Parts: sequence; C-alpha cells; structure tokens
Amino acid sequence: MGQLTGGDPSLLRRINSAVVLHALRDAEILTLTELVSVTGLSRPTLEGVIEGLVESGLVVEAAAEPSKSRRQGRPARRFRFHAESGHLLGIEIGPHRVSALLSDLEGQLRGSVSRDVAEDAAAEERLEKTRAAVGDLLRRSGVPRSSLRAVGVGTPGIVEADGTVRLGTAIPGWTGLRLGERLQRSFRCPVIVENDANAAAVAEHWRGAARDSSDLVFVLAGLSPGAGALIGGRLHRGFGGAAGEIGALHLLGREAFPEKLLSTTGEPLHPLDETAVAHVFSRAAAGEAGARDAVERFLQRLVHDVAALVLALDPELVIVGGWAAGLDGVLEPLRRELDRYCLRPPQVKQSMLGDSAIATGALRLALDHLEHELFAVESTVTARH
Amino acid sequence: MGQLTGGDPSLLRRINSAVVLHALRDAEILTLTELVSVTGLSRPTLEGVIEGLVESGLVVEAAAEPSKSRRQGRPARRFRFHAESGHLLGIEIGPHRVSALLSDLEGQLRGSVSRDVAEDAAAEERLEKTRAAVGDLLRRSGVPRSSLRAVGVGTPGIVEADGTVRLGTAIPGWTGLRLGERLQRSFRCPVIVENDANAAAVAEHWRGAARDSSDLVFVLAGLSPGAGALIGGRLHRGFGGAAGEIGALHLLGREAFPEKLLSTTGEPLHPLDETAVAHVFSRAAAGEAGARDAVERFLQRLVHDVAALVLALDPELVIVGGWAAGLDGVLEPLRRELDRYCLRPPQVKQSMLGDSAIATGALRLALDHLEHELFAVESTVTARH
Repeated sequence: MGQLTGGDPSLLRRINSAVVLHALRDAEILTLTELVSVTGLSRPTLEGVIEGLVESGLVVEAAAEPSKSRRQGRPARRFRFHAESGHLLGIEIGPHRVSALLSDLEGQLRGSVSRDVAEDAAAEERLEKTRAAVGDLLRRSGVPRSSLRAVGVGTPGIVEADGTVRLGTAIPGWTGLRLGERLQRSFRCPVIVENDANAAAVAEHWRGAARDSSDLVFVLAGLSPGAGALIGGRLHRGFGGAAGEIGALHLLGREAFPEKLLSTTGEPLHPLDETAVAHVFSRAAAGEAGARDAVERFLQRLVHDVAALVLALDPELVIVGGWAAGLDGVLEPLRRELDRYCLRPPQVKQSMLGDSAIATGALRLALDHLEHELFAVESTVTARH
Repeated sequence: MGQLTGGDPSLLRRINSAVVLHALRDAEILTLTELVSVTGLSRPTLEGVIEGLVESGLVVEAAAEPSKSRRQGRPARRFRFHAESGHLLGIEIGPHRVSALLSDLEGQLRGSVSRDVAEDAAAEERLEKTRAAVGDLLRRSGVPRSSLRAVGVGTPGIVEADGTVRLGTAIPGWTGLRLGERLQRSFRCPVIVENDANAAAVAEHWRGAARDSSDLVFVLAGLSPGAGALIGGRLHRGFGGAAGEIGALHLLGREAFPEKLLSTTGEPLHPLDETAVAHVFSRAAAGEAGARDAVERFLQRLVHDVAALVLALDPELVIVGGWAAGLDGVLEPLRRELDRYCLRPPQVKQSMLGDSAIATGALRLALDHLEHELFAVESTVTARH
C-alpha cells in the first residue's frame, strides 16, 4: 500500500521518467505500445515522458524493425536507453600508481589508463598526475569532460561519507585531505570516494569472483592488509567508515609489524617495497630456511587478521586480492588455517580482477550513483505501514 | 510508485487490517471518523475491517469519552488495540540457568521466572526445566498457554535460521539439537531461536544502553566471549549465523585459553566456574601479584577479541555484558586500550540489562515476529523501480 508522498506534479513526472528509463534499460528496445503495457502509464502521459527523455538525450529513437515496417502502414516508433549519452569514470589513486576506467552509462568500458607514481609523491603531485591521466584517457577516447555524469574513486585509508580522508597512512599528505571536494572541482559532476578495499569488494561482486555471493569479505593482502565487506549485497562501511581496517590488530598482540615479520636480516623491510617482499617469497620457494621462516611469520599474521574478520562477520566467501594474492603459497595456507579455526569456514577464492579491482569498484560506485539518480523510485515513495 | 501485487480481495482485507491495527497501536484510542482520516479507507470498508478485528480479539471497543457523550446525542464509538488479547515469551536457556519473561502483545512485562540448572545437565533435563519454569510463570500470571502468540529463545552457540543449534559447546548435548522444533511442540506457536549474544544486542537497543545507537556490538564477556552486532538497527547474523563468534581467535595466535590465562596455579580454571574467576579478580584487587598478572593476561585477551570485532565492524558503541562486565577493572582498561589501538574508537558502555539482557532480547524477537505478522504491509507491496 505504498503511495506517493504528496501530489507534486513535477515529482510525478520524475517518477514516471524513472519508470520508463528502467523499462527501456531492462528491455533494450520498446515501442510506445509495449511501454504502455510494461509501465501501466497512459499513452498521452507516456508520450510526454518520452519526449522529455529524448530531449535530455537519455533516450533515443531506434530504427524501425524492417520486417514489420513493410507489412503494416506506418512502422511503430521504437525507443532505447541512450547509454552513450554520458560517461562514468572509476579511478584508483594508490601508493604506487593512479589508474582509471571510462565507461558509458551502462558500465560498458570505453577505455583505461594507468600511470606510475612515486610512493613518496606529495598529495598535490598525486592529484595532478590523476587529472593528467584522466585528461589523456578522455582525449584518446574522444569523450568530452562535460559528458561525465559521475566519478568513483578508490583510495587507501578511512574515507568519510563526504569524501574526506580521515586517516590515510599509506600515501603522504593523504590524512585530512578533502579528496572528494578537490576532485569535484576538476570534474564538475558528483565524485564518490571510497576506501580501496571496499571498492574492490564491490567490484568482485559486480564482475569478479563474487558474482554469486552477497556476503563476502575482500582482503587486500599486502604488508598492511585492509578489507572490505558486503553484507546482503550492500557495502558495510561501518559507523565511521573504518570497517575492515583490521591491520591495526597486530599492534594489540604486541607482535611485530608485517615488514619486520618478513625480514630475514632483522632490519624491517620498507612497508611498500613489494619487490623486496617478492624476493623473500622466491627465496623461500627455493628452500632458504631464513626466508621460509619469514614467510611463515607473515602468513600467520595474515591468517590471523583474516580470521578475525571471518569470525566477526561470518561471510560466505573470502576473496584475496592485492599484490600478495598473486604470490605462490598464500592462498592454500590461508584456506587450510581458516578451515581449521573458523566455526563455519568460508570459501576462499583469489581475486578475478587483480590490478583492476579497485578502479572497477570505483566505476561501479559511480554507476550506482547514476542509477540512483536516474532510476530510483523508492526514495520518493513511502510504504504506509 | 508502490502497488499491490495482484487484486486478491483477501490480501487487500489483510493489508487494510494491518493498516488499521498500526494506526490504533500508534494512537492508542481512535473513533471511526478518526480512523477514516488516518487510514484513508472508506467508512464502510473500515467498519468491515474493525468488525473482523474485534471478532479476532485484537481490537476492543473503548469506553466512550464522558464529556462528549453528554453534549452530543449518540457517543462516537472508540476502539483500541487489545494488547492483552495475547502474550509473548522471551526465554534464556543458559549453561547455569533458564529464565523467562512474559509480556502482552505490546511488550509490556507481565511476569518473569528464573531457575538454576546444573552446568552438566543433559539437554533433555534442561529442556524439561525450561518447560516447567514457563509452566509456573504462566500459572502464576493467570495466562493460558493458548494465549501465547510467539516465543523467542536466546541460547549459547551458533544457531541456524530454522532454530537448530549448529554448534554449542557451552551446554552438553546442545550441538545438533533442533531446539526450535522441540520447543514449538510445547508452545504451539512460532518459536524464534537466536544466539544469546545476538539476543542481548537486540535487547540493549530496545530497552538498554543502546537505545540511541543503531550500530553496536554487544560483548558477552566471560571466559569464552561471544558477541552480537546490530548494523543499521538490524541484527547481523552472518551468512551461517556464526557472526561474532570471536572467541576462537585465540586458537590462532597459539595463545593460551582464557581459563589458563586466569589461572594462578598453572592448572586451568573450569571454563564455566565464575566463582573461581571472581576470586582471582578479588585477589588481584587486594594486590596479590600472581592474581594481578592473571587478570592482566585475561584482560589483554578480552581487549584483543573486542578490538578484532571493532576493527572489522566499526560500530558506534560497544556494550559489555555477561558476568565479567560486572567485575571491577574490566570496563576501564577495555576503553583505554580500544582508544589506543582503534582507528575510530567506539564508545564503551556497560550493559544496562545485566542478567535479563538475553531473555529481554528473546522477548523482543518474539515481538518482532508478531509485529511482522500483524502490521507488516511492506512485504505485500512491490516498489516498482
């Protein structure tokens, strides 16, 4: 027994537009008669709505079906959602690189870009590099900046709802940065900023290893692991956006930091030095005792952090991504130990999206924003109960 | 743009009944004219609905307002929700005792009962004790068993959605028990079984220390801590009902069990021996060195488990309940350590409901079930989008 809130005619028009857009996106191409039957709107109302949508560019007239156009007199006009009428960006701003994906309004990819950034680059330099990379991508793809409808961004740290980085130790100058606001100035469309592991969780559910699961934890495995979780298909950000920041747990156990655990010399590795870490793993694979001990210590740490998440959340599925996921000997021990200690062990899978997980998730968040804007009817309706 | 799913007239009648019940419960007493205005239903429809509800016992006619009845000719008939037309039970079945709360259909308490049970009592004996305690409570309160509309139960262990205990090590014979089914036979009304810490989390949000917070973790602090979480006001059970079972985390760190951590003799305490534990705490308070070390080890363990939950979920509030919450020197160190290690430290409060938290939560779950049955309109409505 839902009902419209009030009798505002422009609200009603907006709802009718959303219903028609939704029908067109689901069905691809529909005639006016088909739209009348799918939406329940009257033909005159529908014609008004379609006219407005064609004017806005979101709907275009499709070519008439050849077979029908011959037999009958005047061919029925057919319409489709105009996915090319705007574009979306998914951006990763990471410690080592910035990358971006460009798509149409249905999330179909149109292009991508990736640039290395020095890990000690200042915030301004990193932002400038991001803007330049996106500028290049738009130029190459022949897409004007004004065509962007929403931009998603995934980046390390605790990100507040307004796009401010509350705490971001992995990137210099990141803590306190009003990242959403800064990028909004460049793009002049809504910018949604999200923690990188959260974005990756969204991505694996959309196009990766978790398409069939709505309850999952994505672990961004590295020297300082982060994690993102979907619960019932929805991103769980936590009360202050800090959910899944399980890396701090080792501080409590008075145990060593991962970069120390992985050291074979007693001197800690640099926290972001992936090459040095990979080197330790390959020496361990070759059988060197000191390196094997180091890897064992590192794995125990990772297992412990992931187990804490699994015990707290009880997900169906754990997806391991980040650079450490690609190293031999990470996934199997993790699976074995979780089986052993968790009351209800989850499935453990490797990320399918690899390096593109974070940007893909950011793109999906931009698409979510757009869909909410274009298609959401629920928010304007109250279910009376 | 919600709409009714189909044109089933009995469905429509059910929805109209729910709308009227909801209006009456919110407003306490309404005349037919007031009901017409609140519900939007026509007077003839409303009269039919009210007649059905009065027949079912859920609605009764209230006395006419004296002031009005004199001035006007025939006084307006007034109706109210008949909260006393049925009853609900909230039951705790724990390792040491069973207890129950009885309420009317609005959750107003009508009575309570509590009985000690030996911790080594077999499952059948424990069930029998529960039935006997409830029988007593009903008799004392003058409530016939047939008046029960729903029963909630809180108990230790991982509880599946159908009320089966998947794993319950704290109570002999509990693992594998079809607890919901067994109790349903005695009560002949729906029985909702939930993990004890989950029930307690629900209770603190309803009537305890978390009335103002929808994102909270309830820690049932004892030798083997369990936890329940509400996220956005909803209980987070996890994919398999095992969320919050953080007690297993210490197995991974290859660290000692709490009952060993708290020992001052080298011999582990009995896992459920609360008296021995309290004794260690009081010796520590008196300054005995060995006892202080033991308490320190125990607290570190508890802080670690709670921190894992907090880092995973990022709740607004942590409520500490269970017997250990009442011990001096538990809450303050926990608050201090969480402040120190969590990226966004939560508030820490002691349980307000104490011993009655689990049964109160079980009662609320029974009330939720009833309200869903009587008042829920949403499930019969589809928001078209």
